[in-house]
Amino acid sequence: MTEKILEPWKTLAVRKVYTSPWVDVSVLKIRLPDGHIVDDYHQIDLPGFVVVFAQVSNGQVILIRQYKQGIHGLSLCLPAGAIEEGEDPLSTAQREFLEETGYVSDEWHRLANLVTNTNYGCGTAHVFVAKNARWYAEPNSGDLEEMQVTLLSPTRVLEAIRSGEMASLSNAAAVTLALNSIINPSQST
Amino acid sequence: MTEKILEPWKTLAVRKVYTSPWVDVSVLKIRLPDGHIVDDYHQIDLPGFVVVFAQVSNGQVILIRQYKQGIHGLSLCLPAGAIEEGEDPLSTAQREFLEETGYVSDEWHRLANLVTNTNYGCGTAHVFVAKNARWYAEPNSGDLEEMQVTLLSPTRVLEAIRSGEMASLSNAAAVTLALNSIINPSQST
Repeated sequence: MTEKILEPWKTLAVRKVYTSPWVDVSVLKIRLPDGHIVDDYHQIDLPGFVVVFAQVSNGQVILIRQYKQGIHGLSLCLPAGAIEEGEDPLSTAQREFLEETGYVSDEWHRLANLVTNTNYGCGTAHVFVAKNARWYAEPNSGDLEEMQVTLLSPTRVLEAIRSGEMASLSNAAAVTLALNSIINPSQST
Repeated sequence: MTEKILEPWKTLAVRKVYTSPWVDVSVLKIRLPDGHIVDDYHQIDLPGFVVVFAQVSNGQVILIRQYKQGIHGLSLCLPAGAIEEGEDPLSTAQREFLEETGYVSDEWHRLANLVTNTNYGCGTAHVFVAKNARWYAEPNSGDLEEMQVTLLSPTRVLEAIRSGEMASLSNAAAVTLALNSIINPSQST
């Protein structure tokens, strides 16, 4: 294997080709390290969002069943939501968790920040873990989706990922990262 | 918790607002189950892609360091790539793995298919595991990025996710799903 010096790309121009309150698309003119010019490299700007892996004291995971348009069907989901303008990601996580599930927790940990698409962007996922969660109030998400809160064992959630019942990439990452941290706590931060 | 009947949304109209060979954006008119109409629900169509978690016989993971525009910096990545028109995802995985790393394997397993964004779509990630991989040829990806192949222990890869050195959501999902399947082989398919 040859050791190479990896150089960054240089953005020469940015042209916005689509704008809306939720989705912006830009086309970049890029110069690669070898001097080659790419005229049409896309960037997709979506809001950052949080994903919450929360367990009650007996280890069961707090989930939501809901219709998701991106899947064209029902899915088993972790509590999640977009970060609002000026909002701290942990505050978003705590707000969405309460709004969507009616649960609260005093033990929050940040697991990782992950870019949705490393070519095009598509927003950053902020993954949180909440432990010893307890029921606090009726959920009241205000979201478009109807939701049904459900508690399942970690083993059952892993099965749901493999079967496609939990079809979200960010949810799968959050579940398996969280369970991996629990299995290997010395590697957690 | 109240049991609800969760109904699907109904798409009343689709208006394409941006088209390119790589990214399509549509605006949907949706009727929610309660009769409420949403006029501007976005869908983002990106190609499906594969992500490969591959280990050599001693357990080290085969990775690539490269500049990624969506991150605006260098990142530690799993071999990955877009599924071409008419291509079977496993064939894409085997092709991209060889092109990007120069390695091959005779033991391939499909772990999960995961939707990148369950609201907007953004393409489906097909996660594969390859075991007992062996070096076969010099890599020759033809991709825009310069790449440097590197082998690291699973523990070191998990650290890279937590530190942000591996910043890709699909990569983090693939690594932790794969390691979880290895830790809990009875739950693997």
